[in-house]
Order: sequence, then C-alpha cells, then structure tokens
Amino acid sequence: MAAHVADRKPQLEVNMLVRDPQVCWSINEKHCNFKYFPEHKLPENVIATTDAKAALLNADFCLHAVPVQFSSSYLEGIAMYVDPGLPFISLSKGLELNTLRTMSQIIPQALRNPRQPYIVLSGPSFALELMNKLPTAMVVASKDKKLANTAQQLLASRNLRINRSSDITGVEIAGALKNVLAIAAGIVEGMNLGNNSMAALVAQGCSEIRWLATKMGAKSTTITGLSGTGDIMLTCFVNLSRNRTVGVRLGSGESLDDILGSMNQVAEGVSTAGAVIALAQKYNVKMPVLTAVARIINNELTPQKAVLELMSLPQVEEV
Amino acid sequence: MAAHVADRKPQLEVNMLVRDPQVCWSINEKHCNFKYFPEHKLPENVIATTDAKAALLNADFCLHAVPVQFSSSYLEGIAMYVDPGLPFISLSKGLELNTLRTMSQIIPQALRNPRQPYIVLSGPSFALELMNKLPTAMVVASKDKKLANTAQQLLASRNLRINRSSDITGVEIAGALKNVLAIAAGIVEGMNLGNNSMAALVAQGCSEIRWLATKMGAKSTTITGLSGTGDIMLTCFVNLSRNRTVGVRLGSGESLDDILGSMNQVAEGVSTAGAVIALAQKYNVKMPVLTAVARIINNELTPQKAVLELMSLPQVEEV
Repeated sequence: MAAHVADRKPQLEVNMLVRDPQVCWSINEKHCNFKYFPEHKLPENVIATTDAKAALLNADFCLHAVPVQFSSSYLEGIAMYVDPGLPFISLSKGLELNTLRTMSQIIPQALRNPRQPYIVLSGPSFALELMNKLPTAMVVASKDKKLANTAQQLLASRNLRINRSSDITGVEIAGALKNVLAIAAGIVEGMNLGNNSMAALVAQGCSEIRWLATKMGAKSTTITGLSGTGDIMLTCFVNLSRNRTVGVRLGSGESLDDILGSMNQVAEGVSTAGAVIALAQKYNVKMPVLTAVARIINNELTPQKAVLELMSLPQVEEV
Repeated sequence: MAAHVADRKPQLEVNMLVRDPQVCWSINEKHCNFKYFPEHKLPENVIATTDAKAALLNADFCLHAVPVQFSSSYLEGIAMYVDPGLPFISLSKGLELNTLRTMSQIIPQALRNPRQPYIVLSGPSFALELMNKLPTAMVVASKDKKLANTAQQLLASRNLRINRSSDITGVEIAGALKNVLAIAAGIVEGMNLGNNSMAALVAQGCSEIRWLATKMGAKSTTITGLSGTGDIMLTCFVNLSRNRTVGVRLGSGESLDDILGSMNQVAEGVSTAGAVIALAQKYNVKMPVLTAVARIINNELTPQKAVLELMSLPQVEEV
C-alpha cells in the first residue's frame, strides 16, 4: 500500500515504519523490500524508518498493517507520537483473541482516544497483484462519510477501484472470519474432497458469516459484496493465501504445531478461529462450518470426523 | 443423476431416454456411457432406451436434462406419452433465447399442462464428482412443499445433501445467469488480469444476479445460497466448466465462431447472454458485468475495452 500511495502521489513522501534495520536499509538504499517483494522496485518517495516519532511527525494518514494480535501493545508503545486527529486506515484483518475486539476497537483504545479518525480498508487484494498494477477493487468504510471520501481520493487509481461504505462492522467481521473459512477450504482441498464440496462449504461459510455479522449490526449487502463474498472467494479458491495453506496441511494430516513452526508469516485465521466459538455463543448463531474449524484447531475434532458431522446435519429448508 | 438415483434405489428401474443408439447399446450391454463417462461402471438398474413411450410408461419421476434451447420442441414431440401427474425434476439451466422463458415455464407450456408437477434441482455439482461419490450439496425447489420433500427423499444420500426451497425463480435465474458470469470469469483469466480482478468481477456478478432476480420475485437468500453463490463460485473459479472455457478463449483473442465450432457440448451461457440485455431493460436493473459479456458475444465490444469501461465506472457508495 505504501508503494501504491507513493506511486499515486509522487509529490508526497510516504514514510514506512519498519522494525528490521536491514529491511529499512534496503528500502532506502536499494528501493526494494528484499523480504517480501525482492523483485519489485519501490517508488523513491517511499522512505523507510525504524523511528516511530519521525514516521508519524506531520503525517496526513496512517496506514496500519500490524497483525491484529500484536496491534494493541504495539500502538500503546507509540501512542505518544500519534496526533489525535491523525486518520488511521487499517489493513489488518482479524479478531483479538480473548477480547474479541476488531481493529476499530483496538486502535482507539490503545491510543486512549475514542475519537481517533478510523477507516477500514478491505477487499480481494493480493499485494503482489497490486504491486504488478493488475486491476483490483476494494472498499473503504468509515462512520465519517467525509473521511471515507478522503480515503477514497487518496487510494483510488487507474488500477484500483475504491468503493465507500459506512458499515465498519460488516467489513471487519467479514475480513476476520474469511480467514477461518479459508482454513476450512484448505482442509477440503487437503482431503481431496473435490470442487463440489468446496463450493458447498464456502457458500455455507458465507451464510454463517452473514448470519453472525448481521446480528452484530452489519448490513447484509456488505457481506455479499466486495469485502465479503469477494474477499472470501479470493481467499478460499486461490492457492496463494497463508490461511488456506494451513488448512491444506491440516487436511493432509499434519499437526498444527508442525505447520505453524514452518511458516514465516502470520496466519491470522488460526487466532481468529479461537474467537469463533465465543462469538457464536454470544450472538446465539449456529455456525457449523466455522466452529468445526475452531474445534479442529483446538484438537477436539479430526478433519475426517468434521466432514461426517457436516454431511449428516439435518437436511432442511433454505432460509 | 440416473446413476445416482439407481444406486440409491436398487429396487427401482431407472430408464434413461437417449437419442444415440450406440450410447443406448453401451449402457445396456456394457453398463457404461462411453461418450461422457467412459471410465465409470453404471448400476445395472440403469436401463437405456431410445423409445420415449417405453421410458415414460409408469414413471414415478422424470429427470429432465435436455438443454434449454431444445427443450420446448423436444417435449412437444413426446407430450403424448407424459402422464399429467408425472413430476418433472429439471436439471437444465438457462433462459430460452427470444422468449426469456425458464424451464418452469417451458415444461408445462410444451406439455400443454399448466399443472404438470415441477421441481428444479440445482447447486454446485460437477457430474464427474457425483459419479465418484464425493460429498456434494444441492437444492430442490418447488411451489409444492410436499413435492419438494418427496424429491429430497428420492435424491438425498450419504454423499448428496439436498436442501429444500420454494423459490423456483431464484434457483432458476441464478442457475441461468451464472453461466454468463462464468464466461466473464473466463475472459478475465484469458486476459491474465489476476485473481484480484477475478474475485471483484465475480462478487459484482453475484450482486447483479441478485438485483435482477429479486426484482423478478426471487428471495435474496436463494441467490446468496448454495444454488446461487455456491454454484457461481464453482462455475467461475474451477476450470472444468464449459462456459468458463468459452470465456478463456474469448479473452485470449479467439473468435466466438471458432470456439463454438470446436466444442462437442453445449455452452448454455452463450445463448443465455443474449437474454441478459433484454432482462436488464425489462426489469430496469443495471448489470454492467453481465451486459458486457452479452456485448462481447455480439461482437459489439472487445474484452480489452470492456475492462477499461468497468474499471472507469463511477466509484460509488456500496448498496
């Protein structure tokens, strides 16, 4: 996203706050993030720094991409440099384990500022394809219509369409739970159950996410839109996703510990799965697919048994 | 479906009415349909015939799988052998060109019996995977609840879940239009636009189908369910589908005539696309993706221009 904004606004300086001094050096000296995009040249107005104070000074926007589970402690540590009027555009997707908070709750609470301007950006968007300038469409959601408009102006380009929405809950819940559903999709693939199963599973998962999200106050059209169904399809049907890979390996019989031990990026769905059972209870929603993933991850159920259970649910009228 | 029902009900005789005498012979003598499933053994209670009168005599159900564009004339020719109480379970998906009729209108009109019992069966189901007994889930819809129940009893098995619905319009319109959307998905693939584009396109297509179908009287939950989103995902994201293949070849620059000339099965989406523009006008619904497919097929628009058009639509608020 830094490269995208920098490309779009060559007159601006885009500061990237990174932790790894080597990544910082390679971005500034070689204009390349050798860790994630070794083959892409970054725009020269992307400037990396490891100094939060310098990065945040006079910033117009903050694009927040720290993984959900680490966001709160990270933000608490840099809160003193954050202007109370600085709009945060969150790219992080997931629910905080134990607290069940989404980013729209985590950010203002960690910054101790309930009025910190907040926008969530979501939708089907593999970073690599955005880097390659392939056509992509996403959604910005904010309670503040003007702010959503400003974020749209900042981000929309010839290869990136940006829709506006006011439904933060819908965008955030879909963004979080699609990672759990992606694990389920991976399991179906790892077990070689075929495409019919995959489509039925993902359609059921979309419905479960919609049932939960609308009970939490989301609009159902958000869940059937770009940041719901659109992002779910990308994550569940395309092999590049980390969460799906976890599922494929679970479905082929590997243990979760072995899988997580061998990955160098965060699979947000594993943590979010832990929150699913609590949410299903809290909002009194039946979510057989998503809770099965949580039980598989907790070692309470094998993938084989889960399939048998799902296939023998009562065959009912569609609602 | 004949093999599935025969397997499920070994005490019944399942008559298959076929046109090709060689296929008929191979099914009866070798228990194999060498044309479509050369590697599968059919149950011995599947009996093929080329004689409509014999096939329909004392039938309890008729599973109708003639392609939509040929159904009316075909049924008119055998109407005299059809008992007015015989329930038709339609597997054919599409809209009749010019008349815009779906199977629930075509069947009773061709049989000159408005009360012919009717059920539509739909959902994400590649035949090959059903033949291999992989887990699959589908929907039966009928205005008559008892009839939907009976069809469910007939078809549901350990590897096939069957949901019931009363929303014939929703199931039929989604089943017809998903083939047009599959052509669009193929075009995106043929043009190498990437997965972000594909997901955005299919999500937009799902919304367009929902907008149209609900204006035609469908329930929105049908379109977001198994026979809507579920079947759309299968057809758009999995390479096996005929309609998607047409799109891939259109997107790579082949002409429609060359493509159709080289195929030995019907790509129903090509005919259905012709109906899309008329439906969009009749019901006053904006369907930029689906009408673009129709215009590409009519040679009024190139795939390249269609992408530019879609990417430069006004960036609006989500509804």
